[in-house]
Parts: sequence; C-alpha cells; structure tokens
Amino acid sequence: MAPSALSQNTTSDAPAFPTKQAGQPLDASNLIYTYTTRPRDVPDEATADSSDETICSDHMVVATWHSSTGWSAPELKPYGPFTLMPTASCLHYATECFEGLKAYRGYDGKLRVFRPDRNAARLNMSAGRISLPQADPNEITKLIYALLEVDGAKWLPKERAGSCLYLRPTIIATQPTIGLVKPKQAMLYIILGYMPRQDTPPGGKRLLTSPEDMVRSWAGGFGYAKVGANYGPSVLATQEAMQRGFHQILWLYGDQGECTEAGGSNFFVVWHRKDGKKEILTAPLDDRLILDGVTRRSCLELAKERLGDEFEITERKFTIGELIEAQTEGRLLESFSAGTAWFITPISMIQHRNHEIPVPTGPDGGPAEVTGKIKGWLSDIMYGRTEHEWATVVSERE
Amino acid sequence: MAPSALSQNTTSDAPAFPTKQAGQPLDASNLIYTYTTRPRDVPDEATADSSDETICSDHMVVATWHSSTGWSAPELKPYGPFTLMPTASCLHYATECFEGLKAYRGYDGKLRVFRPDRNAARLNMSAGRISLPQADPNEITKLIYALLEVDGAKWLPKERAGSCLYLRPTIIATQPTIGLVKPKQAMLYIILGYMPRQDTPPGGKRLLTSPEDMVRSWAGGFGYAKVGANYGPSVLATQEAMQRGFHQILWLYGDQGECTEAGGSNFFVVWHRKDGKKEILTAPLDDRLILDGVTRRSCLELAKERLGDEFEITERKFTIGELIEAQTEGRLLESFSAGTAWFITPISMIQHRNHEIPVPTGPDGGPAEVTGKIKGWLSDIMYGRTEHEWATVVSERE
Repeated sequence: MAPSALSQNTTSDAPAFPTKQAGQPLDASNLIYTYTTRPRDVPDEATADSSDETICSDHMVVATWHSSTGWSAPELKPYGPFTLMPTASCLHYATECFEGLKAYRGYDGKLRVFRPDRNAARLNMSAGRISLPQADPNEITKLIYALLEVDGAKWLPKERAGSCLYLRPTIIATQPTIGLVKPKQAMLYIILGYMPRQDTPPGGKRLLTSPEDMVRSWAGGFGYAKVGANYGPSVLATQEAMQRGFHQILWLYGDQGECTEAGGSNFFVVWHRKDGKKEILTAPLDDRLILDGVTRRSCLELAKERLGDEFEITERKFTIGELIEAQTEGRLLESFSAGTAWFITPISMIQHRNHEIPVPTGPDGGPAEVTGKIKGWLSDIMYGRTEHEWATVVSERE
Repeated sequence: MAPSALSQNTTSDAPAFPTKQAGQPLDASNLIYTYTTRPRDVPDEATADSSDETICSDHMVVATWHSSTGWSAPELKPYGPFTLMPTASCLHYATECFEGLKAYRGYDGKLRVFRPDRNAARLNMSAGRISLPQADPNEITKLIYALLEVDGAKWLPKERAGSCLYLRPTIIATQPTIGLVKPKQAMLYIILGYMPRQDTPPGGKRLLTSPEDMVRSWAGGFGYAKVGANYGPSVLATQEAMQRGFHQILWLYGDQGECTEAGGSNFFVVWHRKDGKKEILTAPLDDRLILDGVTRRSCLELAKERLGDEFEITERKFTIGELIEAQTEGRLLESFSAGTAWFITPISMIQHRNHEIPVPTGPDGGPAEVTGKIKGWLSDIMYGRTEHEWATVVSERE
C-alpha cells in the first residue's frame, strides 16, 4: 500500500534514528544559558512585517557537531551573526536543511506550539538526505521549548493573543573544505522571528501553473525533504509569477500535468467527483515529489475525522486537466493551500497556459465552507480555543 | 539544431548580460587593495593535501551587492571568515552558485589560467538561474587576475612548476530574510586554495551507476547550472559508493539509463560503433541535464581538430545498456571523466547493478591512447609547453 499521511506514523521513509553516528548525541539537558546583555525592543507587528529583514528575538539556540566528537552542549545565546569560513560547505553545496513551525499566543494567554515532534522528525529525515548529522527529534523539540521559555513572554506578549511567531530550526554544514565530501563539521541552530501573516490575500490566492520548462521536483529527487536545494531554484519562476500578479506557482509534474505543490504549501481541492461523491483531495506522498507537510497531514486527519461522512478524503494523483474539466462542469467546489508559512489560504484562481480556472471562495476571496471549517478547527487548536493533543503548551519565564 | 559545445559560443541558454539590474555594475577597476598584516606560511603540498580543511592564500576578493545600489567597489582583503546573519537566505534556500577553475604554474615559470572567460560566463548564467545578481563576466575575470597577481607568486612559487591552485568564485545571497524571496542582498567572493590532485587514482577511476531511486538532474530542472542545489543532494549516493570502493557515481537518467555525468565531471566514451567507425562520445547539452563543462568543451574541440580524421566526435544520448553491449562485443576502447577538479581521469571500471564493465586503460590504470593524447594536449596548454589562446598568462607581483 502506498504510504500516506493517514496510514503511517513516521515521516515518509525517514532514516531511523539513532543512526550509526559517532560521538555525543544531542542532549538538551546540557543546555548552557548565556543571556543577552543588550535586550532589544519588541517591534509592533506592522513594523516587523514591513521590514526587509526578518526581526528575530533576543536569543537563539546553537549546537555544533564534529564527526569525531558528536554534538557539543547546546547553547542558548544572544541572537546575532555567525562567522563562517568562505570555504564552508553550506555556502557552495547546499548542505543545509531546515524546518518551519510557529508558536501561537492563545486567547487564554498560553503559548503553544503545534505538533513540534513532527517538524523535529522531519528535520532529522532531511538531515539524513543531505548528508548532515542527525539528532534525536525529542532533543530538538526540547531545544525549541527552551528558546520559547526564555523569549516567548517578551516577544509574543499576552496582549497579542491570536498572533504567532515563526521558529526556524536549521542545520548547516560548516566544514571549511572545497572538496565535495560528507561534512565533518556542522551546526544546528534555532531562531525565533516575525513573519508577516499571509493567509488572507485580498480576493484569495492566485496561482500560476509552472512554466513548461521547469519542474520543481522529480521521481528520484529530493522534493520530499526540507532541504535548501528545493527552494532557491523555485524563486525564478515564483518571482516571474508575482510580477504577473500571482501569489505562487502551482507546480505540475509529468506529461499529464499532475498537481503537486502550491509554492511552499501543499495543495488541496474540494470537488464533486464524476460519480457524484464529494471529495477532499491532495497529492500523494508515495512518489516522494512533495513535502509531507504537517499542516497537510493535520488537514487530512481532521477532515477524515469530522467530514468523513460527507466527503471522501483522498491522497492520489490528479491533473490540471481534471481540474479544468471539473471547473467547466461546475463540479469544482473549493481549493486551498496548506502549510506553516501561508497556513490555510483559499485559492480563488488558477491560471494554466490559456485557461483561467476560477475557484469558488467565500466573500472577498475568503474561505468557503470546507476551507473555513478546517482552518477554524486548526486555529482553535493552535490558539487554545480547543484543547487538543496536537498543541503543546510551553512553559514560559515571566 | 540542438545546442552543443561545438556549435555555439555562449554557455547554454545563458541569460543575456547585462540584464535589467538596477544600480552600479561590477567594476574591477574600482578594486580596493587591503593587504594582510599577517601573511601566512605556504604549506608544502603534502601538508595541504592531507588537511581536512582547505588551505587558502593570504587574500580573497569580495564585492557586495544590494538591489537598490548595485555592486559595491570590490575589495581584495585578507582571507578570513565572513559574518552572516542566521537568517541569511543562502543558509536556508541554497541561493548560491559557484565556479571552479585552476591557476597553473608553467614549466616556463609563468602563471596561467585556462579559459577563465568561460567560467565567468557560466557563473553569470548560474546566478541568473538561482535568482542572484548578475555581473559582467569580463569584470569577474579581471578580479580573478587581480587575486592571482597578488597571491600567485607566493602561493604557487616557480619551484612548483607543473602544480596548480584552485580558484573558487562564489555568489551567495546574504539577505537576512526568512521569507523565500528573490534576494536583495548578495556577495561575490573569490578565493584561491589547495586542492589535492585527483587525476591519477591507482588502477584508474572506478564508477558505480546511480542507485535506482536517485536521479541527479532531470528535464526541467537545473542540472546545467553550477548551483549548490546540484551538489549537496549527490553526496549521499557518492558517500555510499566510496564506502564500497568506488570513486564516483555515474549518474543515469530515464528508463533507458542514459549516461549523463560522472560525479562532478563530464563523462566520455571512446569506442568502435556497430558500423565500425571509431567514436569519441559524450552526453549532449540540449536537454540541460548536465553541466556545460569547460574541460568537456575543450576535449571536444581538441578532438575535433586533431582526431577528427580518425574518430567521429559526437554529443548524443547513449545508455548504460549500449556501454555494456560494446564491452561485451569488444568494442569499448576507453572512457574518461573530464572536469576541473578531477581533470582528465581514465576510467577503468563501471559497476552497473550486477554488471561489472571493465574498461581498457593504459598501464596501472593510466590513460590509454585517446585519453592520454587529450590529457597531454590540455596539460601542455595549461602548463605552457604549448602556446594556445585558451591559456592566459597572468601578470604577477614578485
């Protein structure tokens, strides 16, 4: 049976942890605290959002790794620049991977993270794919909590209920060697910063299908891993799309134009199938073209649990041709993208070559019924309106 | 007609330069010289080669770029670490590209570079593909010369005739923004360091064909550009191959197993075709799967000029099946890889699944006839035994 977010508990084909790796394992209990002596002012959100440079919190967590000694004791230290040798592997060979997750200030005043264990597991999987050191996901998760414990209360204060900050765990190869080899030196770091809210584009999200001469990911490639190499090469097409008034690229694959990802988000369609059944549909994981998104997985799980009587919830290949046909026949009900950065964003239009595919939305391009329900359920979990095992309350120093 | 190294003068589909880019162009005539006050000792080559960390010369050239102001005045300054923000785009999204070329100490005492204009043009092309700022290749070339003018005499002294140093021009996105956008801040740098000689592996080079579940590059991807994203993801398979006693992966493509690249080098075969004609063969550029190698191009040009009466010189697709068949039928004459780092290296064996394909070489895995001729001609140009337009003598401060 093909792997799917619904049928398995582990991230797609993740290398087992612990792998054979010499030296000290990453150990969050050894965390060294070195506090900033120059705490910075917290910007208002409008200022933070309008900055060309991401504003981060006072601290970051850093741990270094060497192939002979393993992981150093991690350190929580003042946020600031790194020094890297010009020969550092990550600057030449994209020996780097990352995660994105958010910390949510609840309406009950509590600070929560959403399924951080899944992000930590995926970081470990991505590190294995890009020949970086692996680390126990539980320890990575503890380090995320440690950063939030110190900086959460100040940088996402209780007055900002309903807001979130973005967490970026990253592993880079620092090995200062020009030869292309498996890195012997690396660094894990976790930073916490502002990211503008992107889930309510006026009129809904507008997608342009990928140019005929560009493919984001391919069978036998690494589209399933959150490695830098999946992102930089996509900027060119995205930039051109944005100049034409679109928000993101809908990446197609293969001769038939299978719909895979929408920018850095997973892509969902809600429609009447030809057999009359209503279906919530997204691309499958089994060919490893797409990211096993935490939000994607959560959408599928919630939909199965709460909408399963009314809808088929399906992970399978579907093409842009099927989408055009459904729209033409009046069967297309909704479409949305799902991810951490863009959260759940209703899609109002898809342009494919000469075909403009209008997609029904709610008023002003807001979420229609299914999109709105799923978005609401997830928001309620993230912001503490609903108690749910996916949201972990983080203890904070006041 | 399909593009080929023989039929065109520009790197495959390079974005035209100058493109529409605001601000100051890169201008080597503005170079600022800031000399080191702590000149380092030049290591003997054995020491340099055995180091886990690449040893670079006293200086590097750096120029920064901002989308609003363009390129800064470039600076030749002491070699040393950079500071980068943890949010720097290149650390997350592989917004980075590079070049590799060598400086050769000739037997006549002169210092030469080999076709640096081609590397500079390709750097410009790669930068366009990965959404980094472009720069006039002529100015990049002049900056390469400037670094060699200052550090060449000391770091590659005349006593080391027949030796070379490795040049690494690199462009990275320094933009400190977590959002995935076209970078507004970037840096060009050029460093000069030691790289162990790799073109004479005892017994010849042993290749393992790529694992069935891994593809290096694909139609619609970016395999033709020298961007970091092509390299890091290949380390995993290469590392496994090395642990099994091979030197590099022979990357296959498609259902038929087309031979594309050998590790970071281009791949050549010399054989008797079925029609009896002798042929020197390498993969084509038209599907943009492979790098338009400077050494590849030079091999083709020299072979056409000097071996064209005896051999067909061909750029076309060929499969691992054809290779096995040729070996079985006694038609396989030679094979070699061609690139800057590995130079011209005779291949003595290719392992494909259960097939072991022995390849004829000279004594002890050294070059056979064609490989040896091409390697000799290129060496003679690089080290000044033959005057040739491809080798530029660099003026040096004594």
